Amino acid sequence: TNMSKPHIEIVEVGLRDGLQMAKGILPTELKKRWIREAAEAGVHQIEVCSFVPAKVVPGMADAAEVTQYARTLRGVTVIALAPNARGAANAFAAGAHRVTMPISVSASHLMANVRKTHHQAIDELKQAVAMRDAIPVANRPKLDVGLSTAFGCSIEGNVPFIDVVRLTERCLKAGADAVGLADTVGVANPAQVRRLYAEVWNAVGTDKVTSAHFHNTRGQGLANALAALDVGVTSFDAALAGLGGCPFAPGASGNVCTEDLVWMIEEMGFSTGIDLAKLIACRDILTLGLPDDPLQGHVAKVGLSKSGGKGRVASAH
Amino acid sequence: TNMSKPHIEIVEVGLRDGLQMAKGILPTELKKRWIREAAEAGVHQIEVCSFVPAKVVPGMADAAEVTQYARTLRGVTVIALAPNARGAANAFAAGAHRVTMPISVSASHLMANVRKTHHQAIDELKQAVAMRDAIPVANRPKLDVGLSTAFGCSIEGNVPFIDVVRLTERCLKAGADAVGLADTVGVANPAQVRRLYAEVWNAVGTDKVTSAHFHNTRGQGLANALAALDVGVTSFDAALAGLGGCPFAPGASGNVCTEDLVWMIEEMGFSTGIDLAKLIACRDILTLGLPDDPLQGHVAKVGLSKSGGKGRVASAH
Repeated sequence: TNMSKPHIEIVEVGLRDGLQMAKGILPTELKKRWIREAAEAGVHQIEVCSFVPAKVVPGMADAAEVTQYARTLRGVTVIALAPNARGAANAFAAGAHRVTMPISVSASHLMANVRKTHHQAIDELKQAVAMRDAIPVANRPKLDVGLSTAFGCSIEGNVPFIDVVRLTERCLKAGADAVGLADTVGVANPAQVRRLYAEVWNAVGTDKVTSAHFHNTRGQGLANALAALDVGVTSFDAALAGLGGCPFAPGASGNVCTEDLVWMIEEMGFSTGIDLAKLIACRDILTLGLPDDPLQGHVAKVGLSKSGGKGRVASAH
Repeated sequence: TNMSKPHIEIVEVGLRDGLQMAKGILPTELKKRWIREAAEAGVHQIEVCSFVPAKVVPGMADAAEVTQYARTLRGVTVIALAPNARGAANAFAAGAHRVTMPISVSASHLMANVRKTHHQAIDELKQAVAMRDAIPVANRPKLDVGLSTAFGCSIEGNVPFIDVVRLTERCLKAGADAVGLADTVGVANPAQVRRLYAEVWNAVGTDKVTSAHFHNTRGQGLANALAALDVGVTSFDAALAGLGGCPFAPGASGNVCTEDLVWMIEEMGFSTGIDLAKLIACRDILTLGLPDDPLQGHVAKVGLSKSGGKGRVASAH
C-alpha cells in the first residue's frame, strides 16, 4: 500500500450479506479459506457472519466457529452482524472485534423483519451497549449500528431524510460507536446519497458516520459509492463477486462487487491496501462452494490487463 | 417531460455500437421496430447504423434503408457513424441528421482499426466537412467526431490528456461541429473523466464538447457517467440492454445500459424525456431478434417497482 495516497477502507461483507442470500450453503472450511485468502489479499475488515438462530438462516449455524477462526488471523478486524442483544452477546463471546446491529429506518421494514418497534430496537441496542461496556477496555469491541433502508424501503417506498437523521441521533445517544447508512433495497441514487450524508453530518458531525453499504440491485452501486466517496465517506461495504442477489429476483445482483469497487477506488488514486489479483482469485472459492450462485462483477471477467482481451475491432468506437 | 428540470440528452447507440458487436444479425424489420419503439419511448437521439462496407460488418448492410426509415419518424435525430469520407458521403446521401466520424486518439489503435495515420484521418474529416458544407444550409447535417480511446487504449495502454486536447483542437479546426470523448476500451475511472473534460474544456471551451461515450467493460460505466454529469457533460451515449459486449470476452458487458443510465439520471432530478417502462419494453425486440446475445442491465430485471420484488428477509441489511 502506498501511504502517500488517501486510504479508503473496504469491508468485505460477502460472508454475511452475500451468503445470507445465497442459494447454497458454503461449508465452514471454505468460509475459513475465504477469510484467510481475503486477508492475504489485503482485505483487513471482514464481516464474517451473522449471529442469527440457525433455524432462521441455516448457513450461519457456524457463526461462532467462523468468528473464532477469523480472530486467529493477524491484522484482520473481525466483524459480526447481530440483529438483537442476544446475537450481540454471542458475537462478543465469540470474540468479534466489532458487532454491527442493523436497525431499519422504516418502521414497517423493522417490524416485518425483526418484529420490533424502533423503541424496542433501541432498547436492544442499549442492552448490547451495556454488554460492550462490561468488557474490559483493553479488549472492548466496537458496537456499530447499520441503518437499513436508509435510502428507501421495499414496503414504505420513500424514507424521509429526517427519519434517518433522528435515528442516527438516537443510536449514537444510546451508545453506538458508529452508525453506517445502508441502501438495503438498492434504490439510492447519487444525488440522494450526497444529500443524505450532508443532512446526517449536519446533525451529528462526521466522526461517527463514515461508512456506506450499497446494493447493486438497479446497477447503481458504484455510482452511489462514487457519490459517497466524493462527499467524504471513507469506508465501504462490498461483497466478493457481488454476492447477495435476491433469490426472488433472478438476475438482480446484490451487494456492490468488491473487485469492481476496489478497481474504481484504486484507479482514482486512493489506496485500499488490497491486491486485486489476489482478491479475484478468491472467487474460485465461490465457484467451488456455491456452484448454483452466479458470480457478478466485471473486472474479474475481463481481467486486470488494460487491453482486457479486446483486439482489433472494425470501426470500434 | 418536466421542463423545469435540467435536460440531459441520451443517445441510443445500441443499433450501431451494440449490433456491431452482437453475435447475431438483427433483421432490418426489427431494427425499424426498435427505432420506432425507442422514439415512442421518448428516445429522440438515435445512432441507427454505421456506414461501413457490408463485407466488414455484415449486420450494417442495411444502413441506408435503416437511415431512410428513421428519417420518416417525427422528432428523431437520426445519427449515423462513418469511419471515413466515403461512409460520410453515404450517410449524408441517406439523410442522416448527424454523422459521427470516429478517430482514435491512440495512433496504434487508429492504424490497427482503419489503417490510417492521424494526418490521414483528419484529411478524411476535411473531405467530409466539404461534403457537409456543400449541402444547403436548410438541410445541412451535423458532422461530429467521436474520439475513440480517449481514456485509454487496448494497444498503447495510457493515453495522455494532451493527446486528447490536441486532437480535439485539430478536429474542431478541421470543421467538426462537435467532438465527443469515448472510452472505447472501458478503462476510464471517474477521477480521470473529470480531469480530462476539464483539460479539454480549458483548451477549446465547453460549447462543442458536450458528450460522453462510456463502456461498462469493468463495471464503471454509470460511475463514469456520474462523474461526467457532475462536471457538466449533457449528452450520453448508451445502448439498450447494455448491448455491445465483446464477443472475445464473455461476460464483459458493452456500452452503458440505457435503462440503468436513464434510471440514475431521472432519479437524480434531471429529465431525459424518456418513459422508462416503454424503453424497457424495447428489450423484447432483442430477445426476439438476438436470442444468443445476453441482455445486460439491472433495472429491467428488477422492475420499476420501488419494492423490486424484495419482501421479508430475515435480518436483511
